[in-house]
Amino acid sequence: MPTRVIRSAPLSTKEQAMTDKPGPLIAIGGHEDKDGKRVILKAVAERLNGGRLVVATVASQNPEPYFEAYQAAFAALGVRDVIELYLDNRGQADDEAMRATIADAGGIFFTGGDQLRIASQIGDTPLETEIHRLHARGGVIAGTSAGASMQSEVMLVYGSGRETDRIGDVRMAPGLNLISGVIIDQHFAERGRIGRLLGAVAHNPRLLGIGLDEDTAIVVEGRLCTVIGSGGVTIVDAGHVSRSNIAEARRDSVLSIHDVVMHVLGAGDRFDLESRRPGHPAE
Amino acid sequence: MPTRVIRSAPLSTKEQAMTDKPGPLIAIGGHEDKDGKRVILKAVAERLNGGRLVVATVASQNPEPYFEAYQAAFAALGVRDVIELYLDNRGQADDEAMRATIADAGGIFFTGGDQLRIASQIGDTPLETEIHRLHARGGVIAGTSAGASMQSEVMLVYGSGRETDRIGDVRMAPGLNLISGVIIDQHFAERGRIGRLLGAVAHNPRLLGIGLDEDTAIVVEGRLCTVIGSGGVTIVDAGHVSRSNIAEARRDSVLSIHDVVMHVLGAGDRFDLESRRPGHPAE
Repeated sequence: MPTRVIRSAPLSTKEQAMTDKPGPLIAIGGHEDKDGKRVILKAVAERLNGGRLVVATVASQNPEPYFEAYQAAFAALGVRDVIELYLDNRGQADDEAMRATIADAGGIFFTGGDQLRIASQIGDTPLETEIHRLHARGGVIAGTSAGASMQSEVMLVYGSGRETDRIGDVRMAPGLNLISGVIIDQHFAERGRIGRLLGAVAHNPRLLGIGLDEDTAIVVEGRLCTVIGSGGVTIVDAGHVSRSNIAEARRDSVLSIHDVVMHVLGAGDRFDLESRRPGHPAE
Repeated sequence: MPTRVIRSAPLSTKEQAMTDKPGPLIAIGGHEDKDGKRVILKAVAERLNGGRLVVATVASQNPEPYFEAYQAAFAALGVRDVIELYLDNRGQADDEAMRATIADAGGIFFTGGDQLRIASQIGDTPLETEIHRLHARGGVIAGTSAGASMQSEVMLVYGSGRETDRIGDVRMAPGLNLISGVIIDQHFAERGRIGRLLGAVAHNPRLLGIGLDEDTAIVVEGRLCTVIGSGGVTIVDAGHVSRSNIAEARRDSVLSIHDVVMHVLGAGDRFDLESRRPGHPAE
């Protein structure tokens, strides 16, 4: 395994000047439609502007079926220049050829698996820098399930569904921070994850909780999110919480938290990450 | 099947005068501990003050195992005067002997099953009047699962868990209205029912949504709820909702609802149904 020696330089002044218009970020809650109307994948395809799509299967230990499924789905949407990015180990994240793959792409799509694999293999490597550069120069960053979680500042990596959160249950880790100030959770309603998302935001209400249902996504442009897909997006805002026992109670105690503001958004709804306010096109 | 002819008289002036101190209502989210510390059943037992306990198995079409399990659990808590109340059909709710059973009881406990069986067999019968009388004169009204739902003003009788609520999904029906102004749902976190409870309160934000986890209960004294048991109680208050699409969108659309206030309460937490404010003994 090669030792990591190369570090990418920070963005140059020229690159900085190009960051006026960063690209869209598309975070998907998993199980997006791949052979019907493909509303979500189509939104990704349209934003590539004819550029190459890199399908990053890093989150999975068994990536082949993921790549083939997305290759076929995107081909049906007219995206034929699709290549795979996979790392067997973190050392490869320094590989010049891999970096070049992203450097000339129109976008990158992270498939599902384990978000900790993405963050631990790519976090703080030259490859991560290339991903941020791609975003800064207007490229598309998209991802489903683990590939959605890793876009957020903080990721949930463990927490039981199916029950009210116990204080000791939630495990978090830093994500790639492409969307700052948020914790994104996925397969949200399907796996009953409201408890663990509340547990996460209770730790520090600065972070906004975003729960994405399956076949549902937020398209983030600037700091404005727009919901697409067939399910809901749940926002939990602990900014006005009047009391929680997160710091006091025993680890196996039920999380008690008062005055959370919650929004459930459907397709077409919007949410402004700066003002923390929901909106609707009709308004 | 006898035709129902007898109707109970409304409360007499003397009875009204005794209603200064109505009894406690205990609504349990299902699967309460029956052979361990029995925290919840003990709370029921203690409030009987030595009186007889009627175990109403009306919610089930197969009541025998329910009665035996509760008879044993309450016997272990020192409650030995336990009798069963069961109706094969609505006509029996006029039966003088059944009414007498409740008239001299210290409390009644409704076991689980289908809340619609309770409401459709007992609602608007002399037996229902006896239950309200029992409450008014200080007796205990308790129930688990269906027996919790039926205590509320409006019951959820159908609504899918596991996914964000669709507008056409929720079915509601009037409960026995022992706890007015609320919709109680049960098996709450375990069955992922936040979506359907939000759907229910969206219909009319006057009603407060209360989601009870399994082995968790609220003890309602006056209009003050206190949480007991091992899980959480989720309160959803739609009183400040700024927008919802409940009345506009297609029945299969995702419910979109903005600015719900949510509280998750653990054992010891309190909630005032009048002010709609949570509290904690330490405050």
